[in-house]
Amino acid sequence: MLRLHYSPGTVAVVSAIALEEVGADYDPVLVDFKAGAQTKPAYLALNPKGRVPLLETPEGLLTETGAILEYVASDLVPSGAFQRARMRETMYYLAGTMHVAHAHKLRGNRWADEPASFADMTAKVPQTMTDCCAYLEAHLEFAPFAIGADLTLADIYLFVVLSWAPGDGVDMGGFPKLSALVELLSNRASIGAVRAKGML
Amino acid sequence: MLRLHYSPGTVAVVSAIALEEVGADYDPVLVDFKAGAQTKPAYLALNPKGRVPLLETPEGLLTETGAILEYVASDLVPSGAFQRARMRETMYYLAGTMHVAHAHKLRGNRWADEPASFADMTAKVPQTMTDCCAYLEAHLEFAPFAIGADLTLADIYLFVVLSWAPGDGVDMGGFPKLSALVELLSNRASIGAVRAKGML
Repeated sequence: MLRLHYSPGTVAVVSAIALEEVGADYDPVLVDFKAGAQTKPAYLALNPKGRVPLLETPEGLLTETGAILEYVASDLVPSGAFQRARMRETMYYLAGTMHVAHAHKLRGNRWADEPASFADMTAKVPQTMTDCCAYLEAHLEFAPFAIGADLTLADIYLFVVLSWAPGDGVDMGGFPKLSALVELLSNRASIGAVRAKGML
Repeated sequence: MLRLHYSPGTVAVVSAIALEEVGADYDPVLVDFKAGAQTKPAYLALNPKGRVPLLETPEGLLTETGAILEYVASDLVPSGAFQRARMRETMYYLAGTMHVAHAHKLRGNRWADEPASFADMTAKVPQTMTDCCAYLEAHLEFAPFAIGADLTLADIYLFVVLSWAPGDGVDMGGFPKLSALVELLSNRASIGAVRAKGML
Protein backbone atom coordinates (compact mmCIF):
# COMPACT_ATOMS: atom_id res chain seq x y z
CA MET A 1 0.00 0.00 0.00
CA LEU A 2 1.11 3.55 -0.78
CA ARG A 3 0.45 6.41 1.65
CA LEU A 4 0.71 9.95 0.29
CA HIS A 5 1.20 12.72 2.85
CA TYR A 6 -0.21 15.93 1.40
CA SER A 7 -1.70 19.33 2.13
CA PRO A 8 -4.51 20.62 -0.13
CA GLY A 9 -3.45 22.80 -3.05
CA THR A 10 0.26 22.18 -2.58
CA VAL A 11 2.63 20.50 -5.00
CA ALA A 12 1.80 17.22 -3.25
CA VAL A 13 -1.43 17.17 -5.27
CA VAL A 14 0.66 16.49 -8.39
CA SER A 15 1.55 13.07 -6.99
CA ALA A 16 -2.10 12.41 -6.07
CA ILE A 17 -3.22 13.15 -9.64
CA ALA A 18 -0.54 10.80 -11.01
CA LEU A 19 -1.69 8.04 -8.66
CA GLU A 20 -5.30 8.56 -9.83
CA GLU A 21 -4.24 8.54 -13.51
CA VAL A 22 -2.69 5.07 -13.19
CA GLY A 23 -5.43 3.73 -10.90
CA ALA A 24 -3.03 3.09 -8.03
CA ASP A 25 -4.33 2.06 -4.63
CA TYR A 26 -3.20 4.70 -2.13
CA ASP A 27 -4.21 6.36 1.12
CA PRO A 28 -4.03 10.15 1.28
CA VAL A 29 -2.77 11.37 4.66
CA LEU A 30 -3.54 15.01 5.47
CA VAL A 31 -0.66 17.07 6.91
CA ASP A 32 -2.36 20.00 8.65
CA PHE A 33 -0.28 22.98 7.52
CA LYS A 34 -2.61 25.42 9.35
CA ALA A 35 -1.66 23.71 12.61
CA GLY A 36 2.01 23.61 11.55
CA ALA A 37 1.99 19.80 11.56
CA GLN A 38 4.80 19.75 8.99
CA THR A 39 7.11 21.34 11.58
CA LYS A 40 6.24 18.96 14.45
CA PRO A 41 8.41 16.03 15.56
CA ALA A 42 5.90 13.36 14.48
CA TYR A 43 6.07 14.47 10.84
CA LEU A 44 9.74 15.47 10.85
CA ALA A 45 10.58 11.94 12.00
CA LEU A 46 9.16 10.72 8.68
CA ASN A 47 10.30 13.66 6.54
CA PRO A 48 12.99 15.92 7.99
CA LYS A 49 12.48 18.31 5.07
CA GLY A 50 9.24 19.44 6.73
CA ARG A 51 7.52 19.54 3.35
CA VAL A 52 5.08 17.56 1.28
CA PRO A 53 4.80 15.30 -0.66
CA LEU A 54 6.02 12.31 1.28
CA LEU A 55 5.20 8.89 -0.14
CA GLU A 56 5.38 5.77 2.03
CA THR A 57 6.07 2.74 -0.15
CA PRO A 58 6.79 -0.93 0.65
CA GLU A 59 10.41 -0.17 -0.32
CA GLY A 60 10.83 2.93 1.84
CA LEU A 61 10.02 6.63 2.01
CA LEU A 62 10.24 8.98 -0.95
CA THR A 63 10.16 12.77 -1.26
CA GLU A 64 10.43 15.19 -4.22
CA THR A 65 7.58 15.41 -6.70
CA GLY A 66 9.61 14.56 -9.80
CA ALA A 67 11.03 11.40 -8.22
CA ILE A 68 7.65 10.25 -6.89
CA LEU A 69 5.95 10.84 -10.25
CA GLU A 70 8.33 8.62 -12.22
CA TYR A 71 8.14 5.94 -9.49
CA VAL A 72 4.35 5.71 -9.31
CA ALA A 73 3.35 6.47 -12.90
CA SER A 74 5.95 5.25 -15.37
CA ASP A 75 3.07 4.76 -17.85
CA LEU A 76 3.02 8.55 -18.21
CA VAL A 77 6.69 8.71 -19.29
CA PRO A 78 7.16 8.90 -23.10
CA SER A 79 8.92 5.97 -24.77
CA GLY A 80 11.26 8.06 -26.91
CA ALA A 81 14.48 9.27 -25.27
CA PHE A 82 14.24 12.83 -26.51
CA GLN A 83 10.56 13.10 -25.59
CA ARG A 84 11.45 11.82 -22.12
CA ALA A 85 14.13 14.50 -21.90
CA ARG A 86 11.62 17.16 -22.96
CA MET A 87 9.23 15.97 -20.24
CA ARG A 88 11.95 16.10 -17.59
CA GLU A 89 13.15 19.50 -18.86
CA THR A 90 9.67 20.86 -18.09
CA MET A 91 9.51 19.08 -14.72
CA TYR A 92 12.90 20.42 -13.61
CA TYR A 93 11.90 23.91 -14.73
CA LEU A 94 8.77 23.70 -12.60
CA ALA A 95 10.74 22.34 -9.61
CA GLY A 96 13.77 24.61 -9.82
CA THR A 97 12.37 27.85 -11.25
CA MET A 98 8.59 28.26 -11.23
CA HIS A 99 7.74 26.61 -7.90
CA VAL A 100 10.67 28.54 -6.40
CA ALA A 101 9.29 31.81 -7.82
CA HIS A 102 5.89 31.03 -6.26
CA ALA A 103 7.43 30.17 -2.89
CA HIS A 104 8.87 33.68 -2.57
CA LYS A 105 5.34 35.00 -1.99
CA LEU A 106 4.87 33.41 1.45
CA ARG A 107 8.09 31.52 2.24
CA GLY A 108 10.68 34.30 2.09
CA ASN A 109 12.00 33.19 5.48
CA ARG A 110 13.65 30.27 3.73
CA TRP A 111 16.13 32.67 2.13
CA ALA A 112 16.17 35.88 4.21
CA ASP A 113 15.47 37.14 7.70
CA GLU A 114 14.12 40.71 7.48
CA PRO A 115 10.41 41.56 7.07
CA ALA A 116 11.34 44.21 4.50
CA SER A 117 13.00 41.51 2.39
CA PHE A 118 9.90 39.32 2.60
CA ALA A 119 7.75 42.23 1.38
CA ASP A 120 10.18 42.91 -1.46
CA MET A 121 10.10 39.23 -2.49
CA THR A 122 6.31 39.06 -2.30
CA ALA A 123 5.97 42.17 -4.46
CA LYS A 124 8.04 40.61 -7.25
CA VAL A 125 6.06 37.36 -7.50
CA PRO A 126 3.51 38.60 -10.08
CA GLN A 127 6.41 39.49 -12.38
CA THR A 128 8.41 36.29 -11.90
CA MET A 129 5.37 34.04 -12.24
CA THR A 130 4.24 35.96 -15.34
CA ASP A 131 7.73 35.54 -16.81
CA CYS A 132 7.52 31.79 -16.17
CA CYS A 133 4.12 31.59 -17.87
CA ALA A 134 5.48 33.53 -20.85
CA TYR A 135 8.37 31.08 -21.18
CA LEU A 136 6.03 28.08 -21.06
CA GLU A 137 3.51 29.68 -23.45
CA ALA A 138 6.30 30.18 -26.01
CA HIS A 139 8.11 26.87 -25.63
CA LEU A 140 5.74 23.99 -24.87
CA GLU A 141 4.30 21.94 -27.74
CA PHE A 142 0.56 22.14 -26.91
CA ALA A 143 -0.14 19.27 -29.32
CA PRO A 144 -2.48 19.29 -27.40
CA PHE A 145 -0.48 18.21 -24.35
CA ALA A 146 2.67 19.91 -23.10
CA ILE A 147 5.17 17.60 -24.80
CA GLY A 148 3.08 16.18 -27.61
CA ALA A 149 0.01 14.10 -28.43
CA ASP A 150 -0.07 12.15 -25.18
CA LEU A 151 -0.51 13.11 -21.55
CA THR A 152 2.78 12.95 -19.64
CA LEU A 153 3.88 13.66 -16.08
CA ALA A 154 4.77 17.18 -17.18
CA ASP A 155 1.10 18.00 -17.83
CA ILE A 156 0.03 16.99 -14.34
CA TYR A 157 2.84 18.97 -12.76
CA LEU A 158 1.95 21.99 -14.93
CA PHE A 159 -1.71 21.77 -13.97
CA VAL A 160 -1.00 22.24 -10.26
CA VAL A 161 1.71 24.90 -10.61
CA LEU A 162 -0.48 26.87 -13.05
CA SER A 163 -3.34 26.68 -10.54
CA TRP A 164 -1.25 29.00 -8.35
CA ALA A 165 -0.71 31.62 -11.06
CA PRO A 166 -3.94 33.66 -10.77
CA GLY A 167 -3.49 33.97 -6.99
CA ASP A 168 0.09 35.05 -7.63
CA GLY A 169 -1.10 37.97 -9.76
CA VAL A 170 -0.74 36.43 -13.21
CA ASP A 171 -3.33 37.46 -15.81
CA MET A 172 -3.88 34.10 -17.50
CA GLY A 173 -5.82 35.87 -20.26
CA GLY A 174 -2.41 36.70 -21.68
CA PHE A 175 -1.59 32.99 -22.06
CA PRO A 176 -4.24 31.36 -24.24
CA LYS A 177 -2.26 28.16 -24.92
CA LEU A 178 -1.58 27.54 -21.23
CA SER A 179 -5.21 28.33 -20.43
CA ALA A 180 -6.41 25.82 -23.01
CA LEU A 181 -4.10 23.16 -21.56
CA VAL A 182 -5.45 23.80 -18.06
CA GLU A 183 -9.01 23.55 -19.40
CA LEU A 184 -8.23 20.30 -21.22
CA LEU A 185 -6.70 18.78 -18.09
CA SER A 186 -9.41 20.01 -15.74
CA ASN A 187 -11.90 17.65 -17.38
CA ARG A 188 -9.88 14.52 -16.63
CA ALA A 189 -11.27 11.97 -14.19
CA SER A 190 -8.02 12.09 -12.18
CA ILE A 191 -8.48 15.78 -11.45
CA GLY A 192 -12.13 15.20 -10.57
CA ALA A 193 -11.08 12.46 -8.15
CA VAL A 194 -8.59 14.63 -6.25
CA ARG A 195 -11.14 17.46 -6.17
CA ALA A 196 -13.74 15.07 -4.72
CA LYS A 197 -11.23 14.09 -2.05
CA GLY A 198 -10.76 17.76 -1.11
CA MET A 199 -7.11 17.80 -2.18
CA LEU A 200 -7.29 20.54 -4.79
CA MET B 1 27.54 15.66 -32.42
CA LEU B 2 26.62 17.15 -29.06
CA ARG B 3 27.53 20.74 -28.17
CA LEU B 4 27.44 21.71 -24.50
CA HIS B 5 27.19 25.42 -23.72
CA TYR B 6 28.75 26.00 -20.30
CA SER B 7 30.44 28.47 -18.00
CA PRO B 8 33.26 27.21 -15.73
CA GLY B 9 32.25 26.18 -12.22
CA THR B 10 28.51 26.42 -12.90
CA VAL B 11 25.97 23.62 -12.78
CA ALA B 12 26.66 23.10 -16.51
CA VAL B 13 29.81 21.24 -15.46
CA VAL B 14 27.59 18.42 -14.14
CA SER B 15 26.54 17.64 -17.70
CA ALA B 16 30.17 17.78 -18.87
CA ILE B 17 31.23 15.24 -16.25
CA ALA B 18 28.38 12.92 -17.28
CA LEU B 19 29.44 13.18 -20.93
CA GLU B 20 33.02 12.31 -19.93
CA GLU B 21 31.85 9.37 -17.78
CA VAL B 22 30.11 7.72 -20.74
CA GLY B 23 32.83 8.63 -23.24
CA ALA B 24 30.49 10.75 -25.34
CA ASP B 25 31.84 12.82 -28.21
CA TYR B 26 30.94 16.46 -27.47
CA ASP B 27 32.14 20.01 -28.04
CA PRO B 28 32.21 22.35 -25.04
CA VAL B 29 31.11 25.88 -25.97
CA LEU B 30 32.12 28.60 -23.52
CA VAL B 31 29.43 31.13 -22.59
CA ASP B 32 31.35 34.12 -21.27
CA PHE B 33 29.41 35.06 -18.12
CA LYS B 34 31.92 37.82 -17.27
CA ALA B 35 30.97 39.54 -20.54
CA GLY B 36 27.30 38.84 -19.90
CA ALA B 37 27.08 36.64 -22.99
CA GLN B 38 24.19 34.70 -21.46
CA THR B 39 22.06 37.85 -21.59
CA LYS B 40 22.88 38.75 -25.20
CA PRO B 41 20.57 38.08 -28.18
CA ALA B 42 22.88 35.52 -29.80
CA TYR B 43 22.68 33.22 -26.79
CA LEU B 44 19.07 34.02 -25.86
CA ALA B 45 18.05 32.96 -29.36
CA LEU B 46 19.31 29.48 -28.46
CA ASN B 47 18.29 29.50 -24.81
CA PRO B 48 15.77 32.14 -23.73
CA LYS B 49 16.34 31.14 -20.10
CA GLY B 50 19.68 32.95 -20.26
CA ARG B 51 21.31 30.16 -18.27
CA VAL B 52 23.55 27.18 -18.73
CA PRO B 53 23.63 24.28 -19.46
CA LEU B 54 22.31 24.19 -22.98
CA LEU B 55 22.87 21.01 -24.97
CA GLU B 56 22.57 20.98 -28.75
CA THR B 57 21.63 17.50 -29.94
CA PRO B 58 20.72 16.05 -33.36
CA GLU B 59 17.13 15.90 -32.07
CA GLY B 60 16.96 19.48 -30.78
CA LEU B 61 17.99 21.73 -27.91
CA LEU B 62 17.83 20.70 -24.26
CA THR B 63 18.12 22.64 -21.01
CA GLU B 64 17.90 21.65 -17.31
CA THR B 65 20.68 19.59 -15.78
CA GLY B 66 18.51 16.70 -14.59
CA ALA B 67 16.96 16.25 -18.03
CA ILE B 68 20.30 16.45 -19.85
CA LEU B 69 21.93 13.96 -17.49
CA GLU B 70 19.36 11.21 -18.07
CA TYR B 71 19.47 11.87 -21.83
CA VAL B 72 23.24 11.65 -22.25
CA ALA B 73 24.18 9.10 -19.58
CA SER B 74 21.42 6.55 -19.05
CA ASP B 75 24.20 4.09 -18.10
CA LEU B 76 24.47 5.99 -14.81
CA VAL B 77 20.79 5.42 -13.93
CA PRO B 78 20.21 2.44 -11.56
CA SER B 79 18.23 -0.51 -12.92
CA GLY B 80 15.96 -0.89 -9.88
CA ALA B 81 12.86 1.33 -9.77
CA PHE B 82 13.28 2.38 -6.15
CA GLN B 83 16.98 3.08 -6.60
CA ARG B 84 16.12 5.21 -9.62
CA ALA B 85 13.63 7.09 -7.47
CA ARG B 86 16.26 7.63 -4.79
CA MET B 87 18.65 9.00 -7.39
CA ARG B 88 16.02 11.38 -8.75
CA GLU B 89 15.00 12.40 -5.21
CA THR B 90 18.56 13.60 -4.66
CA MET B 91 18.73 15.30 -8.07
CA TYR B 92 15.46 17.18 -7.53
CA TYR B 93 16.63 18.22 -4.06
CA LEU B 94 19.80 19.66 -5.58
CA ALA B 95 17.85 21.43 -8.35
CA GLY B 96 14.96 22.75 -6.30
CA THR B 97 16.51 23.38 -2.88
CA MET B 98 20.31 23.40 -2.67
CA HIS B 99 21.16 25.10 -5.98
CA VAL B 100 18.40 27.62 -5.18
CA ALA B 101 19.92 28.28 -1.74
CA HIS B 102 23.31 28.88 -3.38
CA ALA B 103 21.83 31.23 -6.00
CA HIS B 104 20.61 33.60 -3.29
CA LYS B 105 24.22 34.63 -2.67
CA LEU B 106 24.70 36.47 -5.97
CA ARG B 107 21.39 36.20 -7.85
CA GLY B 108 18.98 37.87 -5.42
CA ASN B 109 17.69 40.06 -8.26
CA ARG B 110 15.84 37.04 -9.57
CA TRP B 111 13.44 37.27 -6.61
CA ALA B 112 13.66 40.82 -5.20
CA ASP B 113 14.54 44.38 -6.24
CA GLU B 114 16.11 46.16 -3.24
CA PRO B 115 19.85 46.09 -2.44
CA ALA B 116 18.99 45.60 1.25
CA SER B 117 17.11 42.42 0.32
CA PHE B 118 20.08 41.13 -1.67
CA ALA B 119 22.36 41.69 1.34
CA ASP B 120 19.89 39.92 3.62
CA MET B 121 19.72 36.96 1.24
CA THR B 122 23.49 36.78 0.86
CA ALA B 123 23.95 36.80 4.64
CA LYS B 124 21.71 33.75 5.06
CA VAL B 125 23.48 31.56 2.48
CA PRO B 126 26.02 30.03 4.92
CA GLN B 127 23.11 28.84 7.06
CA THR B 128 20.93 27.50 4.26
CA MET B 129 23.84 25.74 2.53
CA THR B 130 24.98 24.26 5.85
CA ASP B 131 21.43 23.03 6.48
CA CYS B 132 21.44 21.38 3.04
CA CYS B 133 24.76 19.67 3.76
CA ALA B 134 23.41 18.45 7.12
CA TYR B 135 20.40 16.94 5.40
CA LEU B 136 22.55 15.16 2.81
CA GLU B 137 25.09 13.98 5.42
CA ALA B 138 22.25 12.37 7.40
CA HIS B 139 20.26 10.87 4.55
CA LEU B 140 22.47 9.67 1.69
CA GLU B 141 23.70 6.07 1.64
CA PHE B 142 27.48 6.63 1.22
CA ALA B 143 27.92 2.97 0.25
CA PRO B 144 30.31 4.38 -0.91
CA PHE B 145 28.35 6.38 -3.51
CA ALA B 146 25.34 8.57 -2.74
CA ILE B 147 22.66 6.00 -3.56
CA GLY B 148 24.59 2.74 -3.12
CA ALA B 149 27.49 0.71 -4.45
CA ASP B 150 27.55 2.22 -7.94
CA LEU B 151 28.16 5.70 -9.28
CA THR B 152 24.93 7.36 -10.41
CA LEU B 153 23.98 10.73 -11.87
CA ALA B 154 23.27 11.92 -8.33
CA ASP B 155 26.97 11.65 -7.41
CA ILE B 156 28.08 13.83 -10.29
CA TYR B 157 25.43 16.43 -9.51
CA LEU B 158 26.43 16.37 -5.83
CA PHE B 159 30.12 16.81 -6.68
CA VAL B 160 29.54 20.13 -8.43
CA VAL B 161 26.99 21.55 -5.98
CA LEU B 162 29.20 20.58 -3.03
CA SER B 163 32.14 22.33 -4.72
CA TRP B 164 30.26 25.59 -4.04
CA ALA B 165 29.79 24.93 -0.31
CA PRO B 166 33.15 26.16 1.07
CA GLY B 167 32.83 29.43 -0.85
CA ASP B 168 29.30 29.77 0.50
CA GLY B 169 30.60 29.65 4.07
CA VAL B 170 30.03 25.97 4.84
CA ASP B 171 32.61 24.29 7.11
CA MET B 172 32.90 20.94 5.32
CA GLY B 173 34.86 19.60 8.32
CA GLY B 174 31.47 19.12 9.93
CA PHE B 175 30.42 16.74 7.16
CA PRO B 176 32.89 13.84 7.01
CA LYS B 177 30.71 11.57 4.87
CA LEU B 178 30.11 14.25 2.24
CA SER B 179 33.79 15.14 2.31
CA ALA B 180 34.77 11.51 1.73
CA LEU B 181 32.35 11.29 -1.20
CA VAL B 182 33.84 14.43 -2.75
CA GLU B 183 37.34 12.97 -2.29
CA LEU B 184 36.30 9.65 -3.85
CA LEU B 185 34.79 11.41 -6.86
CA SER B 186 37.63 13.88 -7.32
CA ASN B 187 39.91 11.03 -8.36
CA ARG B 188 37.74 9.95 -11.28
CA ALA B 189 39.04 10.39 -14.82
CA SER B 190 35.88 12.29 -15.78
CA ILE B 191 36.58 14.98 -13.22
CA GLY B 192 40.21 15.15 -14.32
CA ALA B 193 39.08 15.59 -17.91
CA VAL B 194 36.78 18.53 -17.19
CA ARG B 195 39.51 20.10 -15.01
CA ALA B 196 41.98 19.73 -17.86
CA LYS B 197 39.50 21.48 -20.15
CA GLY B 198 39.28 24.40 -17.70
CA MET B 199 35.62 23.78 -16.93
CA LEU B 200 35.88 23.22 -13.19
